[in-house]
Amino acid sequence: MRFLKGHGTENDFVVLPDVDDRLQLTGELVRALCDRRAGIGGDGILRVVRGQDGLWFMDYRNADGSIAEMCGNGVRVYARYLVEAGLESEGHLQLRTRGGIKEVDVKDGTVLVDMGPAVVGDPVDVDGMPATAVDMGNPHAVLHVASVEALGVLDPDRKDLNVEYVEDVADNHIRMRVHERGVGETRSCGTGACAAVVATVLRLGIPRGTAFTVDVPGGRLTVTWREDGHVSLEGPAVIVAEGDWHDA
Amino acid sequence: MRFLKGHGTENDFVVLPDVDDRLQLTGELVRALCDRRAGIGGDGILRVVRGQDGLWFMDYRNADGSIAEMCGNGVRVYARYLVEAGLESEGHLQLRTRGGIKEVDVKDGTVLVDMGPAVVGDPVDVDGMPATAVDMGNPHAVLHVASVEALGVLDPDRKDLNVEYVEDVADNHIRMRVHERGVGETRSCGTGACAAVVATVLRLGIPRGTAFTVDVPGGRLTVTWREDGHVSLEGPAVIVAEGDWHDA
Repeated sequence: MRFLKGHGTENDFVVLPDVDDRLQLTGELVRALCDRRAGIGGDGILRVVRGQDGLWFMDYRNADGSIAEMCGNGVRVYARYLVEAGLESEGHLQLRTRGGIKEVDVKDGTVLVDMGPAVVGDPVDVDGMPATAVDMGNPHAVLHVASVEALGVLDPDRKDLNVEYVEDVADNHIRMRVHERGVGETRSCGTGACAAVVATVLRLGIPRGTAFTVDVPGGRLTVTWREDGHVSLEGPAVIVAEGDWHDA
Repeated sequence: MRFLKGHGTENDFVVLPDVDDRLQLTGELVRALCDRRAGIGGDGILRVVRGQDGLWFMDYRNADGSIAEMCGNGVRVYARYLVEAGLESEGHLQLRTRGGIKEVDVKDGTVLVDMGPAVVGDPVDVDGMPATAVDMGNPHAVLHVASVEALGVLDPDRKDLNVEYVEDVADNHIRMRVHERGVGETRSCGTGACAAVVATVLRLGIPRGTAFTVDVPGGRLTVTWREDGHVSLEGPAVIVAEGDWHDA
């Protein structure tokens, strides 16, 4: 089985080219491929299928075999693959996901994706502090802290939410750590970076449309809460290896 | 850069074919390849070099970039690669390592390696219990417990030793968990399985020469403390993928 391995700010994926939609991607197969010791290893699978409507479809699976609608870093790696494989040219692309059609711009060093609208909810209480609730298709709670490093091991008292801890670095520049529900702390989270910037814009009372630099443990993203309410996520997305998996 | 990925009882390695010894394997390159998110991922690197004496040399590096003399599961994966690549035939092989020449038998489903002599030392105290000290080229302390599962998180009070916790399953059959110094609990440890069997033979007062089944979290090994004092380690060793790494 042909595979590629790629990552966006160290959120990593096994890419499975399957243009003609012939591969039966069972939960067992997903778990075997994503196993970091006995398989290839990854946070998830990106199966590349050409849809009947002519759009590329991203069949995204979590490492545990479950189906997910969307993945902000995954869709960026997916787009990078299409361009590197010569299936698409650099520039604007539309990609179909279970979370709808995504608008993507593949550039030389980065890939930008329109992550859709942010929905801000009522504040929630996390670790005894008021957090900004932001829904990006999945639920986030954003806390402002003096230092993300000083937090030590992340163990929020709300396990039903993705929790972002945000520190101000400079104007339009934040640093973030994220605890993903059901996973724990991760190196990066695309929707989490979007939620963090939305919460920061609200906290600072500045207008939308400003590009923020977001430092995550796995690298650097650029996030803009646009004037139309959508959030754009931009950052590196690279293919690091390709090869053949010897099916067990 | 051409690579393969393989594992022995889920102790996993990046194999780098470099027959003519041309590759400069820096610590930085080792860490980049072994990075489980931004690289290929592995517990170590096995660089395959043909020595001037005609023997294959195993240039083994730990994931942190340091040099190690030997690795019991690594040498088995190395031998499997040689046979799968057509560089050697199944059967007996001699492989050169920094820990000396190793005698290896590559079979259909398993690979057996002579791990050399076990040196039994004075008992040591671990977690307030007397443990059997066994040196297999690296230091081990083996504790006998009623249930390895009941131990929960392994956190021995001796961090300078590899500590094996051993449970009796049946005649000539043990189950083991291991805490490797500088690493933490791992899925498997070849020298640890050898030490565990040596300590069990001594504890039970049975003669050498009996083959033991050793269940580790990553699979099943067979270990024999031979009458000549050497310990043989046998178990599965598989190549699961091969491909090209896009050097960063």
